Amino acid sequence: MVNKNNFNVAVVGATGAVGKEMLKTLERLNFPVKSILPLSSKRSAGTKVVFRGEEIEVKEATPESFEGIDLALFSAGGSVSRSLAPEAVKRGAIVVDNTSAFRMDPEVPLVVPEVNPHHLDDHNGIISNPNCSTIQMVAALEPIREAFGLEKIIVSTYQAVSGAGADAIDEMYSQSKDVIEGKQTEASLLPVSGDKKHYQIAYNAIPQIDLFQDNGYTFEEMKMINETKKITGDNSLHVAATCVRLPIETGHSESVFFEISKEGISTEDIFSVLDKAEGVTLMDDPKEQLYPMAVDAAGKDDVFVGRIRKDLDNDKGFHCWIVSDNLLKGAALNSVQIAQALVKKGLLK
Amino acid sequence: MVNKNNFNVAVVGATGAVGKEMLKTLERLNFPVKSILPLSSKRSAGTKVVFRGEEIEVKEATPESFEGIDLALFSAGGSVSRSLAPEAVKRGAIVVDNTSAFRMDPEVPLVVPEVNPHHLDDHNGIISNPNCSTIQMVAALEPIREAFGLEKIIVSTYQAVSGAGADAIDEMYSQSKDVIEGKQTEASLLPVSGDKKHYQIAYNAIPQIDLFQDNGYTFEEMKMINETKKITGDNSLHVAATCVRLPIETGHSESVFFEISKEGISTEDIFSVLDKAEGVTLMDDPKEQLYPMAVDAAGKDDVFVGRIRKDLDNDKGFHCWIVSDNLLKGAALNSVQIAQALVKKGLLK
Repeated sequence: MVNKNNFNVAVVGATGAVGKEMLKTLERLNFPVKSILPLSSKRSAGTKVVFRGEEIEVKEATPESFEGIDLALFSAGGSVSRSLAPEAVKRGAIVVDNTSAFRMDPEVPLVVPEVNPHHLDDHNGIISNPNCSTIQMVAALEPIREAFGLEKIIVSTYQAVSGAGADAIDEMYSQSKDVIEGKQTEASLLPVSGDKKHYQIAYNAIPQIDLFQDNGYTFEEMKMINETKKITGDNSLHVAATCVRLPIETGHSESVFFEISKEGISTEDIFSVLDKAEGVTLMDDPKEQLYPMAVDAAGKDDVFVGRIRKDLDNDKGFHCWIVSDNLLKGAALNSVQIAQALVKKGLLK
Repeated sequence: MVNKNNFNVAVVGATGAVGKEMLKTLERLNFPVKSILPLSSKRSAGTKVVFRGEEIEVKEATPESFEGIDLALFSAGGSVSRSLAPEAVKRGAIVVDNTSAFRMDPEVPLVVPEVNPHHLDDHNGIISNPNCSTIQMVAALEPIREAFGLEKIIVSTYQAVSGAGADAIDEMYSQSKDVIEGKQTEASLLPVSGDKKHYQIAYNAIPQIDLFQDNGYTFEEMKMINETKKITGDNSLHVAATCVRLPIETGHSESVFFEISKEGISTEDIFSVLDKAEGVTLMDDPKEQLYPMAVDAAGKDDVFVGRIRKDLDNDKGFHCWIVSDNLLKGAALNSVQIAQALVKKGLLK
C-alpha cells in the first residue's frame, strides 16, 4: 500500500474563529496538505483566506464540494455538520467534526489523541472533536486516571468569549468600551446567540453557556459530563460541571476537584505524573506565584496545570487549575492532531 | 436601664471602598447615629466625606480618637485593627472589625447576623466581620444546613476587583483601556498588593487572592474554609475552596457544590427553604434564563442564589450559584447589621 502522504483537505467554516485557526494549524504543524479548500456558508463565500502565503477564495459548502476530498475539518455549527458531513463521507472523505452534532453517537469516536487514540480504529468516516472545555480537562486528568484511578470530577469553568465565535469577542470589547465611557451597554449575542435573552458580558460573569436542558443543567455542562465518560470509556466516573462565561478573549480556565481511587497519593506524586504527560505543561510554584492564566495560555498549544493541592479532608481528593487556549487545543489543534493520528495509524492514506 | 438609642460612631478607613459604603449604609439603614467620626491613616486625613448631606473632615486615627465612641467600625487593614481596635475597646467602644485580624481568635465572635447572632452574646469588645466570600456563602447555605444538615462544601469563586480596594478598580479599567487601544498593560497591584509579582487582571482570570500559605492554599481560601466552620460552629463540616480574581468591578459569584446529610431531598425542597430565608433572594428559572449575575447584584443588599440543581450521581449533592455585592453584604452592610443586632440584643446601649 502506498502512503500518498499528500491530502486534499477541506475546511468547513473557514472564515470563523476556529476555522481560521484550523488553516493556521494545518500550516504550522506542516500537515501534508496537497490542496486546501476553504468552505463556508453562502453568506461568507467569496471572501478570502490565506494558506501558506497564498490568498484563496472561500467557496460555498455544498455536497459536491467534497468530491476528491480526503479530509474535511468541520467547524460551522451543528446543523451544517449534520447535513454535509455524511455527504463528505459518502464521497470518500474522512470528517473531523468540531461541532456537537455526532459527539454522543455511539458509532462516532470522540477523540483527544493523547487520551484515546485507539477509539479512532473503529471510525465510520466521522470522528468528533470534543467540546473545548472537555478536551483540556481530560488531557490533564487522563494521566492521573491511568496512574491512580479516577472516581469523581467536580469542575467549575471560567470560559472565554472566543468560544462563542468572533462576534462574541467584538461584543465584549464594544461593551467594555461603553462601560469605560459611561455609556449604556447593548447585548445581542451572549450568553447564547439562539436563546431569548442576552446579557452584558463585560465586567460580568454569566452562569450559562449553551441552552438549558430539562434537568436544569446547560448543554455545555452536559457535554462536559457525557463527553468525559465517553472519552475515558468509564461510565461509572462521576462528573459534575458548572459552566460560566467570562469577559476573557481567549483561554478557558477550570477549577477542578478530582477524587482518585488510590489512597496515600501525595501532591508530588501528581506532579511527577503530569510532568511526564504529553501535551501538558505543569506550572505550579506558589512561592513564585507561578500558576497558569488565560492571557498566558492564549496562542499556546499545551494544556497548563497548576494550583495542585490535596483536599484538607479527603485523602483521595485534589484540587487544580487547568488552562488552555480554547481555539487551539480546545478546537483547531485537537482536530488537526486527530488528522495526524489518522495518518500515523494508516487510517488516512 | 435607659437605652440611649443614639450612638457616637467612628468609621476607621472612612476613605476606602468599604469605609465609604459603611457611611452610606449607616445612613441608609437609619442606624441611630448621634455623631459620626470618620478616621483614616495620616495620608488620607484632612480629606472630606459626606454623611447625611454634611461634609465632614476625616481625622487621623489614634488611640485617643476613640474617647467617647460607642461603636467603631474598622476597615483599614489588619495591622490598623491589631493596633487600634484594643485601644477603642479600652475606651469603652464596641468594635466591629472588617479585617482578618481577629477572625480566628477564639475570644472574638465571627458573625453573620442571619446565621449566628447568638455568638454576639459572648463578645469581649471586638466582633469580627467575616471575609466577603464567606459571608454570602454561609448566608445562602445556613438555612439549608438547618433544614437538611450539611456535610461538605466545594466552592470555586469568581471575585470582583473591588474586594482589593478602590485602586484595584482603577487598575482594571486602566488595563482594559490599554488592551482595547492595543497598548501594553501595566500591573502594579493585583493579585495581591503586598506580593512579589503582579499580573494583568483585564480579560484574565487570576487564581490567587491573598498570599499563599505553606499548604498550597491561599489565605483567602483558608479564610473561607476556617471561617465557615467557626460561623456554623461545625468543625466536622468539610470545606474546600478555590478563589479566583476576575475583571468584574463589584459582585462576587460562587459556584458551590454542597452535600447535605438527609436523603431524598429534591431541588424543590431546597427552593422552598431558600424562599423563606432572611437576606436571601432566590433567582432560579432556567426557562426564563433567570439566574444571579454580578452586574445585577452590585448595589443590592441581598444574597442571590440560582442554578440550583441536584448532582447527577449523588442523591445528597447539589450545585448552585451564589452572588452578592462584596462591598455590601460582603463587608459594609454585614458590619452595620452586626451593630443593629448588638442594639437589638441590648449589647450596645
